[in-house]
Amino acid sequence: MELNRVIDDIEPADQEMMLRAREHTSQLVMPHRALGELHLIGERVCGIQRTLEPSVKSKAVLIMAGDHGIALQGVSAYPQEVTGEMVKTFVRGGAGINALARQVGASVMVVDMGIVSDLSDLASAERVRAGQTSGENRLVIKKIAKGTKDFTIGPAMTREQAEESVLAGYEIAAGVLEQGVELLATGDMGIGNTSPATAIGAVVTGHAVKRMTGRGTGVDDETFARKCQAIQKGIAANVPHAEDPLDVLSKVGGFEIGGIAGVILAGARFQRPVVIDGFISTAGALLADAMCPSATDYMFAGHRSTEQGHQFMIEHLRLKPLLDFEMRLGEGTGAALAMHIIEAGVRIFREVLTFEQAGVSKEKA
Amino acid sequence: MELNRVIDDIEPADQEMMLRAREHTSQLVMPHRALGELHLIGERVCGIQRTLEPSVKSKAVLIMAGDHGIALQGVSAYPQEVTGEMVKTFVRGGAGINALARQVGASVMVVDMGIVSDLSDLASAERVRAGQTSGENRLVIKKIAKGTKDFTIGPAMTREQAEESVLAGYEIAAGVLEQGVELLATGDMGIGNTSPATAIGAVVTGHAVKRMTGRGTGVDDETFARKCQAIQKGIAANVPHAEDPLDVLSKVGGFEIGGIAGVILAGARFQRPVVIDGFISTAGALLADAMCPSATDYMFAGHRSTEQGHQFMIEHLRLKPLLDFEMRLGEGTGAALAMHIIEAGVRIFREVLTFEQAGVSKEKA
Repeated sequence: MELNRVIDDIEPADQEMMLRAREHTSQLVMPHRALGELHLIGERVCGIQRTLEPSVKSKAVLIMAGDHGIALQGVSAYPQEVTGEMVKTFVRGGAGINALARQVGASVMVVDMGIVSDLSDLASAERVRAGQTSGENRLVIKKIAKGTKDFTIGPAMTREQAEESVLAGYEIAAGVLEQGVELLATGDMGIGNTSPATAIGAVVTGHAVKRMTGRGTGVDDETFARKCQAIQKGIAANVPHAEDPLDVLSKVGGFEIGGIAGVILAGARFQRPVVIDGFISTAGALLADAMCPSATDYMFAGHRSTEQGHQFMIEHLRLKPLLDFEMRLGEGTGAALAMHIIEAGVRIFREVLTFEQAGVSKEKA
Repeated sequence: MELNRVIDDIEPADQEMMLRAREHTSQLVMPHRALGELHLIGERVCGIQRTLEPSVKSKAVLIMAGDHGIALQGVSAYPQEVTGEMVKTFVRGGAGINALARQVGASVMVVDMGIVSDLSDLASAERVRAGQTSGENRLVIKKIAKGTKDFTIGPAMTREQAEESVLAGYEIAAGVLEQGVELLATGDMGIGNTSPATAIGAVVTGHAVKRMTGRGTGVDDETFARKCQAIQKGIAANVPHAEDPLDVLSKVGGFEIGGIAGVILAGARFQRPVVIDGFISTAGALLADAMCPSATDYMFAGHRSTEQGHQFMIEHLRLKPLLDFEMRLGEGTGAALAMHIIEAGVRIFREVLTFEQAGVSKEKA
């Protein structure tokens, strides 16, 4: 599988179908477009899925996990082993994303894109169990390497690894979509990963590192200053080319961020909507958009993160976040929560009667 | 049942329980309060339900329906018979609120608080059917009168009818809560009812009618000017006393708005959260708040309506709307959609493991 082939196969959403959907909305038994953005959502899903009978019943959250060499520079409030520990918690079903995925009826698949810990035993045990149960909370190992290299002193990964990470995300998501999943959400886990996400955001959007940098999982002033400096140093040392997304990913990125870009490309290729989570996921979305602008037609911005630079990324993609609850967890939590809103838009489109069907009087002339 | 007895029995939410809930949140396996407002929601439900094991599994939307004498002044884009036609559509399950209530797993109860059409046959037929099925989309007749009187020339109803409407709403909701419902949403239907809601909003919040008045279901400039003048004329003709909510309700209100106030008082009395829908429901919430300030502890503002005056009402109640999708339908649609968010807050509180349970390393010292 070549990345160029994937990208060539992606088509824009169907504008003609969206217009037909808009015409249907105008007949629903309510004042004209009285449910505002819910109508736009339903119509976008029609354009994405090429149908006037859109469906998002079958849902999956894909959590891409990876570790980061830059974590050793003291840019995070948590030790690096937490990445592997949280992956175990996802598989066990005890994290925030598990609660929200259960609520919306989404399966959870965790992908080890390159964490330091070895979880192959857990993955094997889980495969055995998956044969017996519904396969909720699955773990898949696609380890590109045991964490990226410290990008303050050189590239985070090779260009080959960058492409490999995008293709791994693509293949995982393609497999899920081929099994009939109709709506994807992206998620991430990786101690230190707000640093590569900030670097990608700064390079791709052109905003200064200081404006893009936030507090991540909650760092103090000293750590914050160190984080800013480390990111600036990394960009200066690597000189990533903004117009070449694989170059940006290889120099200042992360394996899970490449994986997220691949998941989004799969949604676009298979014509299924993808709900983007917060800061880290949106860094992946920036790369997917840079590789293939049509892929952005398939994205919904799940929520506005409190992470400072998120707003600039969202603006760059010309998306509008659906929710704003001052969340900053990652894992896919904002995207999973926003799946309810996507489903609401689809249900309004599909389930509400027309004026004619309901026999209700229309507006006075 | 006397209204004063109901009000005397309402206690504030349990602040001590909310503090204990806050302590539990700080142990969840995620950065400190990383899910922002979702934590506040879960903790508020703990304080409302007096438990560290909150539950909102069982949900109901109560749609209060009524007609309005002022509709004959040409303040709405729709003819008055639409109120009854829409009630039929609710019972049939084909309206916007039905789609959203089905999605969140809420039952729908429609209450004829005073519509012009006679739907007693439908209610009887529905009672027979309800014996055979799950009882979704029930219709109950509590008709105070066949529509209010035109409040531009005198009071909309008597003071006795005002009290009767609040108590009817209270009793309906109390019955639902006694059957085990744990989370309520308010809804409304009534052609012309943005006019009484605007009048109530202007009188209670002290904002000018011109600032409070919006376009309702979508009126043109001429209708808008007529609507503003009619509301101003009604307030001038009746001189409602802002500090006496039953006086305000009787002079410029509506039966369904009184009913909504009663539903909210029942939630407060039975210590269950109530999600308030948009403009009309929030007018009912203003009355409930004026009758019993502690009742506001039990309210969640479901969404921000595009109806102009809604923001002023919400500010008066010191609530923050959960969602903003430029909706302006009523029926309870914004409240039903927001039930997902309340449930998410509760699930995060209940289902996420603590750091200790998950065996995950805490922040570096």
